[in-house]
Amino acid sequence: MRRTVDPKKISHIGVAVRNLEAALPLYTEVLGLSLEGVETVSSEGVKVAFLRIGETRIELLEPLGPDSPIASFLEKRGEGIHHIALEVDGIEQQLKLLSEKGVRLIHERPKQGAHGTRIAFLHPKATGGVLYELCEPDKTES
Amino acid sequence: MRRTVDPKKISHIGVAVRNLEAALPLYTEVLGLSLEGVETVSSEGVKVAFLRIGETRIELLEPLGPDSPIASFLEKRGEGIHHIALEVDGIEQQLKLLSEKGVRLIHERPKQGAHGTRIAFLHPKATGGVLYELCEPDKTES
Repeated sequence: MRRTVDPKKISHIGVAVRNLEAALPLYTEVLGLSLEGVETVSSEGVKVAFLRIGETRIELLEPLGPDSPIASFLEKRGEGIHHIALEVDGIEQQLKLLSEKGVRLIHERPKQGAHGTRIAFLHPKATGGVLYELCEPDKTES
Repeated sequence: MRRTVDPKKISHIGVAVRNLEAALPLYTEVLGLSLEGVETVSSEGVKVAFLRIGETRIELLEPLGPDSPIASFLEKRGEGIHHIALEVDGIEQQLKLLSEKGVRLIHERPKQGAHGTRIAFLHPKATGGVLYELCEPDKTES
């Protein structure tokens, strides 16, 4: 029987920014990270820029409007690190396992994330104030 | 001429916790991450637990006393993500490059970090509210 979540790696680190255009030069021109793309994720109310670093990514998140969870975060905390996404296999089973172990979840079932991933957030009250996302990549993506 | 910092990977993500013993079971018993060790880093006023995930680590930081920067962080923000450490080569040259590019630094010169690393922090006002650390591993460590 599977007893722990066993994430493979950090899928990405989400960073909330007010404006992607203003935030990007630090990452591309100063740090020299490669910008893999920019995508709008309507379900999360964000425009996202992906920057590759090693096996993981930094994802800059700009709110699409005032109703975006990222807009609320910026309002409350200002710009900064928003969440850590852990890559997992079998996200439904992992969410079930977490529930069984008494870990409070924001999403009991996965929802659609960027570039075909399925994602779900754990409740930060259950994880020492860290907003953790589980993230399962799209297996059909090359 | 070298023109960008070119970090190799995320060395670790620092997470501020009030109590390591209380924080660890989520990481070891629920997520199933491997605890590599616990170390006291007096220069930073913290006790640190290292948890391997892929090529990187989550580092849980417990303050050693009320004067620790982590104690101030906990006081102001509560438990949560504290910093992102980027692994670099030639940390002195990278800090010089950042200065030349007008990026404000907390440390102009590297200081001693955990397990023989040399580290320096960038100022979060220069990096969109994210506390970034540059981190160069101890080359003599096997």
